[in-house]
Amino acid sequence: MVHVVDVPRMARWIASSGAEARIAGMAAQVEADFANWEKFDKRPRVADHSPNGVIELMPTSNGELYGVKYVNGHPINPSRGLQTVVALGILSDVETGYPLLISEMTMLTALRTAATSAMAAKHLARRDARRMALIGTGSQSEFQSLGFRALLGINDLALWDTDPEALVKAERNLTGLGFDVRVASSAADATQGADIVTTCTADKTLATVLTNAMVTPGMHINAIGGDCPGKTELETSILRRARIFVEYEPQTRIEGEIQHLPEGHEVTELWRVVRREAAGRLSDEEITVFDSVGFAIEDFSALCYLRDTLDADVADVDLLVAPTNPKDLYSLVNENLPVTA
Amino acid sequence: MVHVVDVPRMARWIASSGAEARIAGMAAQVEADFANWEKFDKRPRVADHSPNGVIELMPTSNGELYGVKYVNGHPINPSRGLQTVVALGILSDVETGYPLLISEMTMLTALRTAATSAMAAKHLARRDARRMALIGTGSQSEFQSLGFRALLGINDLALWDTDPEALVKAERNLTGLGFDVRVASSAADATQGADIVTTCTADKTLATVLTNAMVTPGMHINAIGGDCPGKTELETSILRRARIFVEYEPQTRIEGEIQHLPEGHEVTELWRVVRREAAGRLSDEEITVFDSVGFAIEDFSALCYLRDTLDADVADVDLLVAPTNPKDLYSLVNENLPVTA
Repeated sequence: MVHVVDVPRMARWIASSGAEARIAGMAAQVEADFANWEKFDKRPRVADHSPNGVIELMPTSNGELYGVKYVNGHPINPSRGLQTVVALGILSDVETGYPLLISEMTMLTALRTAATSAMAAKHLARRDARRMALIGTGSQSEFQSLGFRALLGINDLALWDTDPEALVKAERNLTGLGFDVRVASSAADATQGADIVTTCTADKTLATVLTNAMVTPGMHINAIGGDCPGKTELETSILRRARIFVEYEPQTRIEGEIQHLPEGHEVTELWRVVRREAAGRLSDEEITVFDSVGFAIEDFSALCYLRDTLDADVADVDLLVAPTNPKDLYSLVNENLPVTA
Repeated sequence: MVHVVDVPRMARWIASSGAEARIAGMAAQVEADFANWEKFDKRPRVADHSPNGVIELMPTSNGELYGVKYVNGHPINPSRGLQTVVALGILSDVETGYPLLISEMTMLTALRTAATSAMAAKHLARRDARRMALIGTGSQSEFQSLGFRALLGINDLALWDTDPEALVKAERNLTGLGFDVRVASSAADATQGADIVTTCTADKTLATVLTNAMVTPGMHINAIGGDCPGKTELETSILRRARIFVEYEPQTRIEGEIQHLPEGHEVTELWRVVRREAAGRLSDEEITVFDSVGFAIEDFSALCYLRDTLDADVADVDLLVAPTNPKDLYSLVNENLPVTA
């Protein structure tokens, strides 16, 4: 039997503690796993690109458990009433190779992305940061906001999106969650007075969501929407003014904002900051960029955290054969099959 | 909703036509997909090795559908009452990135492996082949036998395994299926008079299951047990006497029997034989080897064939979020969550 967490069960699991607490718990798990960086198998994700999107696999293992996420990215999907991103995850026991848990991961990914962003900002943003600009108010925006409130105490938000309906939606949800919300008139307006800027747009284009002129000394930029080849959000000149932090450099060179920079441009992997082997923010004037693309270890952390905190609200699905004699797989067919002799 | 085919449903789907007919149908699908070789994304499987086994992902796409198999290989597992190999599969729509079907794939893999072996042998074995030696009578053996009967009319079997219980099990099952079965006293004895030799053992070692002395002119060798680095079954000198056929050369160089040969040693990819762009067997004296490791396209074919022939006997599992407003993922949590403002 494999435990299955479907969409209603995931929603109940999140609601049982509240999304903000779940994101905070997951951030601690991501941080702990980043601190054990050398234990993990690491590789860039395995991507299949097609004209309208991408389907990706993100596997990793720490030697005891193995996790893999199936995830798509189809920016065209909302225009047909579908999600840009849906995801499924499998968590397995390395010793036997048997799957333990299958989970919906669309919501779980939203939590883990917010958890990772907030954990990074805890190390990289100014300690006195109070205001965040959110550029892109789609599916990620509420989760990002909750993550930054949980870990950094951010409660003042300025919102911008080119889609007016997405702005109205985010304003309603975030106000309901107790944030001080200002709807801006442009991306530039949103960034006025912001200590942190989160860009989370979904177009699969080389968009310039954030221009150099919007960026002021001391800002932390949490760039999460640029996450595949040809999909970026920041004007390149911003990257040249900033210290850049990444999850896993070989993957980010392919997918991140830094795909526009020469191979040799210095970046710092975040796990080194977590372990205090590299410095985070060096001064109140420095501009820091978390060039986040999403890495397999974060999904692994999310699946482990889910498994560790799940109560009995799971479905057991019979997906693993168990013949009485392990070498007699055929018996499972034969039990049902008239002998053809 | 995603259609889920669990173990009981898979057993019923197989039984509804009989395993032999399912294998024959799947062989036709594998052959058709091999004939469309250039349409597929192809890469060696993505493997995570651990001391007692391996966990692998096998993705591919033809541009319309995307398939991925999760599969382990733990030769130690039968000693603790578990399967050496269990597998799960996901079939998705490339246009949306949404999963369509999740299936148990342990049984389905047994069918597709047999289907591929038999399809290869149809092109490579002598037309007058009548007898097959089966070396290794574990979980694969009955399915292999049914595949060779369906496609080549093979009904005479000689069995050998170092595990006496596995031999008894296979003799009972295969006799029940109407085969003429001879239990041999050794691998050498089993190969006496055999036109085809199938090796399907599971040890993760550089075993020599078949020695050069057992191989006679005109034999076709269906080598399916050697399928990862350090796991092979044939004495290397056999390979130097034979013409060698593989599924996907870059993967077989890593995992197959040919890992013992120099990189430049000539091999022929089977799809070229299927398309008549390369010759199969050239004479009745030639020794042919199908150095099979299992390739992602075969799993894709199996999932497509399953989907095309499934009746209504599936479970629908709610694994894909569907918020009323596609940009309002948070509404799924919010519906259940007390506002924390």
